[in-house]
Amino acid sequence: MKIEGEEHRALWFENGKIKFIDQRKLPFKIKIFTAKTVDDCCFAIKDMVVRGAPAIGAAAAYGMVLGKKEYDIAAKKLKKTRPTAYDLFYAIEYMLDRIKKGEDVLESANNYVEDIIDRCHRIGINGEKLIKNGMRILTHCNAGALATVDWGTALAPFRVAHNKGKKFFVYADETRPRCQGYLTSWELKQEHIDHAVIADNAAGYYMKNGDIDMVITGADRIAKNGDFANKIGTYEKAVLAKENGIPFYVAAPISTFDKTIKDGSEIVIEERGQEELAKINGRKIMPDFIKVKNPAFDVTPHKYVTGYITEEKIIKMNLE
Amino acid sequence: MKIEGEEHRALWFENGKIKFIDQRKLPFKIKIFTAKTVDDCCFAIKDMVVRGAPAIGAAAAYGMVLGKKEYDIAAKKLKKTRPTAYDLFYAIEYMLDRIKKGEDVLESANNYVEDIIDRCHRIGINGEKLIKNGMRILTHCNAGALATVDWGTALAPFRVAHNKGKKFFVYADETRPRCQGYLTSWELKQEHIDHAVIADNAAGYYMKNGDIDMVITGADRIAKNGDFANKIGTYEKAVLAKENGIPFYVAAPISTFDKTIKDGSEIVIEERGQEELAKINGRKIMPDFIKVKNPAFDVTPHKYVTGYITEEKIIKMNLE
Repeated sequence: MKIEGEEHRALWFENGKIKFIDQRKLPFKIKIFTAKTVDDCCFAIKDMVVRGAPAIGAAAAYGMVLGKKEYDIAAKKLKKTRPTAYDLFYAIEYMLDRIKKGEDVLESANNYVEDIIDRCHRIGINGEKLIKNGMRILTHCNAGALATVDWGTALAPFRVAHNKGKKFFVYADETRPRCQGYLTSWELKQEHIDHAVIADNAAGYYMKNGDIDMVITGADRIAKNGDFANKIGTYEKAVLAKENGIPFYVAAPISTFDKTIKDGSEIVIEERGQEELAKINGRKIMPDFIKVKNPAFDVTPHKYVTGYITEEKIIKMNLE
Repeated sequence: MKIEGEEHRALWFENGKIKFIDQRKLPFKIKIFTAKTVDDCCFAIKDMVVRGAPAIGAAAAYGMVLGKKEYDIAAKKLKKTRPTAYDLFYAIEYMLDRIKKGEDVLESANNYVEDIIDRCHRIGINGEKLIKNGMRILTHCNAGALATVDWGTALAPFRVAHNKGKKFFVYADETRPRCQGYLTSWELKQEHIDHAVIADNAAGYYMKNGDIDMVITGADRIAKNGDFANKIGTYEKAVLAKENGIPFYVAAPISTFDKTIKDGSEIVIEERGQEELAKINGRKIMPDFIKVKNPAFDVTPHKYVTGYITEEKIIKMNLE
């Protein structure tokens, strides 16, 4: 991804430590968070220094490197950080398997991360075919390079299409409570991709008015039948897309597909704290007396999905 | 409405001036805004010192009193403040008609306001019948006493049901960009009605999980065929309610029904400034580089409405 014209990654391993672009501070400032221990890495995942399913997977892979040979303990700690993103568990299993086979732990983690970046790039190449000149495309949350180390999932097709010279416009949902739409805007601005942020409430308005031609989101976990968990509000936008006859695509690499669960009812939804709604960028926006409920994800049934953009191909669903 | 146990109104006329509870400051602090001239009153409507269709109507009625006999000029200025709420135009026509008949202007305005309060109370009495013990009810924006001088439209049935001893739970959408859900929470807290604020993105999640039994919202303008304009996001919640088989009611007095327009396509939607999304309670929450689109209302087709709770009766729609 570009930051002021230079190539960067959302996280990397350097001199025995994991370095993260601290996503709690973005897009207000660029700060680096350093994880020296497994516990630091767990904190980074829990507190959302790093977020987005593939990036959480990459963080966990490097987190295992910090395990200092106590890999089972490291794996246990890392698995407890957040329940919904499947990539976390996928990456830990990948690492445990490589370690059992006697492979070098840092090399394995590096391979995992290079592989996920390559997969995201290929998602971009496959998804780019769906983007036609003049299209207006909605995305929810941030499924960009920040969420995947590089390229992104939902944003990868935008990057590839833009690099090919295609013209299109992106509507970025603000994505309350954590306003990841600001991260999406920040990424798109770095790439000079034309876009605007809208209140989550306005997505339906633009769909009904015929101003949106396609929706692309990421995913945190996809069940065998295609039901998928993603950032809260994704279900709403998927229902609205179907109601308005707008194609709805989910962009995700193989590491997000959980073949062990039959359908979305088995996905654990994380309930996060009240303060996520009450604060933005560390500032209180809500009076203290207000009580809040804050589910972090929702599950969208597969019947609302037009297709899954993967690194292999676009898997089309038989829409009901 | 109660404020710390005492009865209050959202606005009133006192010693030749209009007094408003300044809704730009709520629920952070209670401040009174005083309008001495028609221009002050126009500013109060435009800048959302007062908001909510019936309250805007009441403000316009008192605004005419400040016209100092130049009623046509006052009417013209007031009509230009905001385009969507029908009550504004209804109240001005009501006042011009009374003035033409030679009736006292202050007495006419007082009659208008007492009448709208009475109508809202009767909306509460009619709507209360829909509320059963144990129900979980979603509301969007603030259609409370603040939006209607007293009682509210969507919130009036809650007040009446609560006073009758019924137990129920209210989900209040945060309602970005202006977060009127905080006003709803503030009103419900004053009445000791059990509730929580949720991100607008979470409404669909709770509907799909079977946690919401009914939706009640207000309206800014209702066309002849039942299509209605209301706060941005209402359309989304209506589509989601229908998709999940949840009854969706619109609570509004006669002054919100615009018999001059056939359907929702004739309703003018106000586009408001970027700063509404970028600031909460006067504080910047968004970096400057972000571009925003900010439609203030949307139109919900009548096919998503179960019924209209009016002061006369509940008008049921023939759902498709």
